[in-house]
Amino acid sequence: MTDTGINTSFKRNKRPQESPKEIADKLLAGDRSALSRAITFVESNKKTHQKVASEILKLCLPHSGKSLRIGITGVPGVGKSTFIEAFGCKVVKNFNKKVAVLAVDPSSQKSKGSILGDKTRMDELVTLDNVFVRPSPAGSTLGGVAQKTREAVFLCEAAGYEIILIETVGVGQSETAVKSMVDYFLLLMLAGAGDELQGIKRGIMEMADTIVITKADGGNENNAIKAKVSYQNAVHLFPPHESNWITRVLSSSSLEGRGLDRIWEEIEKYQDHIVSNGFMNENREKQSLNWFHESVKSELIGKFYDRPEVMQKIVELEKAIKENRISSFAAARELLN
Amino acid sequence: MTDTGINTSFKRNKRPQESPKEIADKLLAGDRSALSRAITFVESNKKTHQKVASEILKLCLPHSGKSLRIGITGVPGVGKSTFIEAFGCKVVKNFNKKVAVLAVDPSSQKSKGSILGDKTRMDELVTLDNVFVRPSPAGSTLGGVAQKTREAVFLCEAAGYEIILIETVGVGQSETAVKSMVDYFLLLMLAGAGDELQGIKRGIMEMADTIVITKADGGNENNAIKAKVSYQNAVHLFPPHESNWITRVLSSSSLEGRGLDRIWEEIEKYQDHIVSNGFMNENREKQSLNWFHESVKSELIGKFYDRPEVMQKIVELEKAIKENRISSFAAARELLN
Repeated sequence: MTDTGINTSFKRNKRPQESPKEIADKLLAGDRSALSRAITFVESNKKTHQKVASEILKLCLPHSGKSLRIGITGVPGVGKSTFIEAFGCKVVKNFNKKVAVLAVDPSSQKSKGSILGDKTRMDELVTLDNVFVRPSPAGSTLGGVAQKTREAVFLCEAAGYEIILIETVGVGQSETAVKSMVDYFLLLMLAGAGDELQGIKRGIMEMADTIVITKADGGNENNAIKAKVSYQNAVHLFPPHESNWITRVLSSSSLEGRGLDRIWEEIEKYQDHIVSNGFMNENREKQSLNWFHESVKSELIGKFYDRPEVMQKIVELEKAIKENRISSFAAARELLN
Repeated sequence: MTDTGINTSFKRNKRPQESPKEIADKLLAGDRSALSRAITFVESNKKTHQKVASEILKLCLPHSGKSLRIGITGVPGVGKSTFIEAFGCKVVKNFNKKVAVLAVDPSSQKSKGSILGDKTRMDELVTLDNVFVRPSPAGSTLGGVAQKTREAVFLCEAAGYEIILIETVGVGQSETAVKSMVDYFLLLMLAGAGDELQGIKRGIMEMADTIVITKADGGNENNAIKAKVSYQNAVHLFPPHESNWITRVLSSSSLEGRGLDRIWEEIEKYQDHIVSNGFMNENREKQSLNWFHESVKSELIGKFYDRPEVMQKIVELEKAIKENRISSFAAARELLN
């Protein structure tokens, strides 16, 4: 079996202890198994592992950044995994790129199997040499899960992956988290279903750099054409992208492999566009600073609420608030003093 | 001129110094001018004033809560001020209630004149005895502005006001802030304009307990009837309210005074509904706890970022992030240590 980065943690225990520098060196030389071990450290919540992860990241960061980061979303059932399988194989085999596939799914637990845990849906992709597939990190908060995926992106880039596909669950807030770490956002939609039925919020449609109508095959081609026209009309009414890019609606059949070349062409056009107008760098810098401040805030709040004396005081104050003895704001000030 | 609470700050300087207890006693006896002075303390950012405000609030809180808190929103031009003028007069004169009108408008500066600063639009209302009108507190952050308005609500209640109308600007996030402090949320809409044209987000329509089509007068009655039907159909598709209340679409003419009795009837039905099923108390308790935790978080973050050594370190770390020398997360951890 090719090592795709899944279920490798049991191997790590058998290896002689590696230093962060050794892991980073192998990773930078393109060793997929070292990449996988590095991500395992990033995903761990153990203090000692986090220290190793920090050192590996520090060594890898200067070599990161040389990829196109692509977010892929769509409601369950739209065919995300089959699209990634078909599109990923195309990009590796026809366009000769190294492809990494990651995921952000705060609802998943590794033990329960996350959206990418079901490797059988990516039969061919996971066997290719220039491919790295990693399921969503486990975690209860979206911010934590997304942060780990974001650091995995840097590691994949340092290991030479040129196209990073980040899958999201498509049912809630994870789209926004993924949007905040990618250069390009692809929304998959089904033909013959109103957007209410698909559960996709208008805000998510507005984020999309390209919309792809999936499953344009079998007897479904006419529906796909109609859906293309109607979404293209809707897209015209959306506010313009900061990148000055114009969203187009395309269609594809993962089953028959149709439309995938056209999507790749669109992505290359997009990349040229944002590299030449400076948006790519600007946007990445803005994303990094946002992530920094969001991390500061969430860590600060987390640390504060973790203190036992704070928790005890909160219980008292909540009681006083419920009994109308203190206003919420006064209680907050009292807690902080 | 009747003292409506506007422009009274110059009077305060001429008064002999009052203690918080004296202000609270007068306020609790229904003295409108004392209420106005108390709110001025609440709105002040001066440390000494905040201390006075805390003491007044503490004395008033046990007497607060006995009102129906109503949020009113709608895009600029929908006729919020004329609606409040007509509806407020009706409630005071026909239904014999004491009415307070507050506002949340983070964009306003008192000096520039806020949405309720323009008293000429509420000509009659401001002259009535059982009415208290107060423009939006000044402030740059929505959270800060909303917090002050929320505390003003408690003071108005302690002074005996039974209906609190809280106006929002209707162009952004302030609706959510107002929703989080009211029992009932009223959305005003224009006939003959698609909801895209009105700039009202679907999320705001979903929050509404009642939708009122305004300006159903002149040649506009037919449009209003059509709009009623179409909004009523849209409302059916929304997720149910936590209160189990069913949103109805009504119409009104502030100019001709039509539809206002029906709206009042709807509000009374609503109040009976949420009092009898327990939602009113539950919801207020939940709101208070939310406000408490939101205040804790924003104060905590504010205090942290205010420290000069933190600001200096942030400048350094932002530079390192831009130069790819450190990841956002590692930088956040470094800042917090």
